[in-house]
Amino acid sequence: MSEDQYTIGIDFGTLSGRAVLVRVSDGAEIASAEHVYASGVIDDSLHGTTLPPDWALQDPADWLDVVRETVPAVLRESGIDAHSVIGIGTDTTACTVLPCKRDGTPLCTTDEFRDRPHAWPKLWRHHAAQPQADRINALAADRGETWLPRYGGRLSSEWELAKALQLLEEDAEVYAATELWVEFADWIIWQLCGSYARNRCTAGYKGAYQDGTYPSRDFFAALHPDFADFAETRLVSELAELGTPAGGLTAEAAGWTGLPEGVPVAVGNVDAHVTVPAAQAIDAGTMVAVMGTSTCHVMNGDVLAEVPGMCGVVDGGITPGKYGYEAGQSGVGDIFAWWARVGFPPSRAAQAADGESPHDVLTRLARDQRPGAHGLVALDWMSGNRSILVDHELSGVIVGLTLDTKPEDVYRALVEATAFGTRRIIEAFAEAGAPVRSFVAAGGLIKNSFVMQLYADIIGMPISVIGSDQGPALGSAIHAAVAAGAHADVTAAAKAMGRVQHDVYRPNEENKAVYDELYARYVTLHDWFGTANDELHELRRIRNRARSAS
Amino acid sequence: MSEDQYTIGIDFGTLSGRAVLVRVSDGAEIASAEHVYASGVIDDSLHGTTLPPDWALQDPADWLDVVRETVPAVLRESGIDAHSVIGIGTDTTACTVLPCKRDGTPLCTTDEFRDRPHAWPKLWRHHAAQPQADRINALAADRGETWLPRYGGRLSSEWELAKALQLLEEDAEVYAATELWVEFADWIIWQLCGSYARNRCTAGYKGAYQDGTYPSRDFFAALHPDFADFAETRLVSELAELGTPAGGLTAEAAGWTGLPEGVPVAVGNVDAHVTVPAAQAIDAGTMVAVMGTSTCHVMNGDVLAEVPGMCGVVDGGITPGKYGYEAGQSGVGDIFAWWARVGFPPSRAAQAADGESPHDVLTRLARDQRPGAHGLVALDWMSGNRSILVDHELSGVIVGLTLDTKPEDVYRALVEATAFGTRRIIEAFAEAGAPVRSFVAAGGLIKNSFVMQLYADIIGMPISVIGSDQGPALGSAIHAAVAAGAHADVTAAAKAMGRVQHDVYRPNEENKAVYDELYARYVTLHDWFGTANDELHELRRIRNRARSAS
Repeated sequence: MSEDQYTIGIDFGTLSGRAVLVRVSDGAEIASAEHVYASGVIDDSLHGTTLPPDWALQDPADWLDVVRETVPAVLRESGIDAHSVIGIGTDTTACTVLPCKRDGTPLCTTDEFRDRPHAWPKLWRHHAAQPQADRINALAADRGETWLPRYGGRLSSEWELAKALQLLEEDAEVYAATELWVEFADWIIWQLCGSYARNRCTAGYKGAYQDGTYPSRDFFAALHPDFADFAETRLVSELAELGTPAGGLTAEAAGWTGLPEGVPVAVGNVDAHVTVPAAQAIDAGTMVAVMGTSTCHVMNGDVLAEVPGMCGVVDGGITPGKYGYEAGQSGVGDIFAWWARVGFPPSRAAQAADGESPHDVLTRLARDQRPGAHGLVALDWMSGNRSILVDHELSGVIVGLTLDTKPEDVYRALVEATAFGTRRIIEAFAEAGAPVRSFVAAGGLIKNSFVMQLYADIIGMPISVIGSDQGPALGSAIHAAVAAGAHADVTAAAKAMGRVQHDVYRPNEENKAVYDELYARYVTLHDWFGTANDELHELRRIRNRARSAS
Repeated sequence: MSEDQYTIGIDFGTLSGRAVLVRVSDGAEIASAEHVYASGVIDDSLHGTTLPPDWALQDPADWLDVVRETVPAVLRESGIDAHSVIGIGTDTTACTVLPCKRDGTPLCTTDEFRDRPHAWPKLWRHHAAQPQADRINALAADRGETWLPRYGGRLSSEWELAKALQLLEEDAEVYAATELWVEFADWIIWQLCGSYARNRCTAGYKGAYQDGTYPSRDFFAALHPDFADFAETRLVSELAELGTPAGGLTAEAAGWTGLPEGVPVAVGNVDAHVTVPAAQAIDAGTMVAVMGTSTCHVMNGDVLAEVPGMCGVVDGGITPGKYGYEAGQSGVGDIFAWWARVGFPPSRAAQAADGESPHDVLTRLARDQRPGAHGLVALDWMSGNRSILVDHELSGVIVGLTLDTKPEDVYRALVEATAFGTRRIIEAFAEAGAPVRSFVAAGGLIKNSFVMQLYADIIGMPISVIGSDQGPALGSAIHAAVAAGAHADVTAAAKAMGRVQHDVYRPNEENKAVYDELYARYVTLHDWFGTANDELHELRRIRNRARSAS
């Protein structure tokens, strides 16, 4: 036991961060600890200033607290000698991005700017830069920018460029003081090892870095004259490969964590992407679906393909040497939760056994239905459509309702709808030349065997399941082990340390045949509401006008 | 007071019958009484025989019990002298129809046939003759029968021909013993006055009697060789005008009721149609919507027009000398009730004040919303579509759902959807040359001011409201007064005895403008789901196959 080596992975989420201490030889998770951010999501007000709608900020002090709290905790809990920890790795939400001085000091920590909302980190779900994103996309389409198809034809308002342009246009002073525009993923590494290593993943997916460069000076200038030098001055062009060391733990960070100074710190990474090695899903064509309130699909490929509506494809964006693809569904578990809030009447509450949640009751009543027996098909767009339509102004549709339709019927139809959405994405990958050969599920929904089996029946492929509840943190620990030289590369480390149960759910062929028919209905509705007409946008326009008049 | 004259109207519904004693001079409702049928709707089993799906029978003994119970009760309650009752009138559900011997004896009351389901009255909502209706419609369309467009292009499976053909094909013995195929509306009158007067209303709307004749012998023969003489032998071709006397009360019926022998009995009538004079809505172009679980639209017109998807147009079908139009929506209050069962979660139950029903809570939360603010539009087809598509295999659709959609949002959208459906019918009448000039609401929903105002805003016309809770029974009492000679005709009697509050709900022009936009969405969805493609039928087919496999 004394010869075992360990790494620590830290996963920074939206509301908390968690560390896992992992054995390098086999990936055994020895200890874990969580720390909830004191400020959480700052979306109401900042130092007395009311924030506009769709804003969402965070406090970098919360992130450092996670380091200070959870690393000592896992060392304590495990009882291992800190000197047997050979590396540390992290993953974060993205694109969460902050304006810094050249030395990495966040502007929000300076006396001059601490009361200025734009000086604070913009959380991934800050959605107030949509007007800027719209202009970026229109301009890029107009100019025929070659990088645009790498993002399914649209950059998100959540990403680096739109958020930076919003900063420039709404607070030019803070923008002028911004010497670097830094991803959370890289900032936290900088605090640990004292140097700035811009990781290839967020630079590509969130920073529009493609084929060795950012969008051109001309492009930025056309958005705003003062934006012309944005990439040259505020983004770093030298990128760091995932799984390489960004540096060694500083004395200060050693003090925070109780780890020895100089321990290798892996280059920063992103929660969904880092899950790929944790699920031993490095091979080209193995799609990992991180299924929770929303779903993120990540997959390596051997070739560069332009998939309509994907979030992005980045060379080395998941694993060095492979093209990393990302797609997503903006509402999944969120949609089930919506229905459990709306469609759970007293008649069903009365059927709840001790400790059963609305989800449990609806699942129990829905799970034994024959496919198609409810007569419904739904479009899973209650939170918009990320892939393949990239349209957040879309909304949900339920078709086939009768006076006999029961709450559990709709619940089942909504689960099926999200599975149809996944199938549509899988087919889009295949059509674009990046076929999905196997499918691995990760995230909170893997505990729900009803959902998992429906997905297998609907996508018509066996579903493998990640063998860890802490996929991202385990993935970060794997990258730390590679950065520390304990494994030759991420592929070898994933093989040793990752965990997956193969083909846990296999399609029931009889069910699949029915779902093929229902999926044809889904596709017809998908195309009609999604592209053939503007009905959903008209409804949204009427709604927004009515609400703004209220 | 001693010189006042009275009539009694009896309204036979699906589960009960009710009598109203009315003053002839001014229509004042002096007394009322209700009797619930002992057997109600017979749809499970009959004398130990399990009934097939979609069957619905009734027991004529229940109908006679209504006469025996309610007429004496209103005499007692009012305290008036039975000799001041100068007439009696009735209305019934339709098409409720029964096989009789030549003297009016129902076959179900004979020892020979009492255990044979086909010997019993088939209630209006007996839906097991759909295969027969489909063949009738296909054949009529194929032959270009001129009467077919008078029924919006399709006879219903609920009507006389389909039900008779089912009888023939499924129980030839009972069919052979059937000497007359009698509407409930006429059978009850027969029991009261001892003679058979076939009323023009049901002969036209339910018996396909048009332009002085039934469909031809050739037509019937093409359906089944033994059906060739159906109309000649089992239907009566001499029709009785509404509001004329069918005869005088028999001694036996006088004994049941406590009324003097010989009191004039008005020709039989139908619940929705008889409501027209009760609401003083005789004028051509005044549409009466009887709004309850479903809605029936009845309207007199000066000209004969063929309205797509109407239930029927019958010369003198509502009022002698006018063309009576009928249309309908198969689900209205039923749809609101469905949502109150499904979409009423604990969060809303907790908001119910003492005595508030789910409808009350949802209405209270929905009523002050700005039109369009919920972002939804729905198709009101949860119970199929009667007018204008005449398609009971259609189903409901809700469009525009988001994670913010609340139970009351859907409730409001469903109320709006039924109003859009009404507007579509009104527009179909106008397009066909039978414009709707004013709109009168009757039925249970008139108590709901939220629903009424929404309808006014959406149809863009003022809504008048019938002044009686007992519209059909009052209408029957009006016809009784005409049959007794107390008023010159139905128009004069309606003016004296009917009651309407004019223009109670007026369109809010600002709301109407928004609803014009939402209605355009409704029409697009209506046409796409209703006629442009087969998605809803495909879903129904998949559903039915799954259910039959269960």
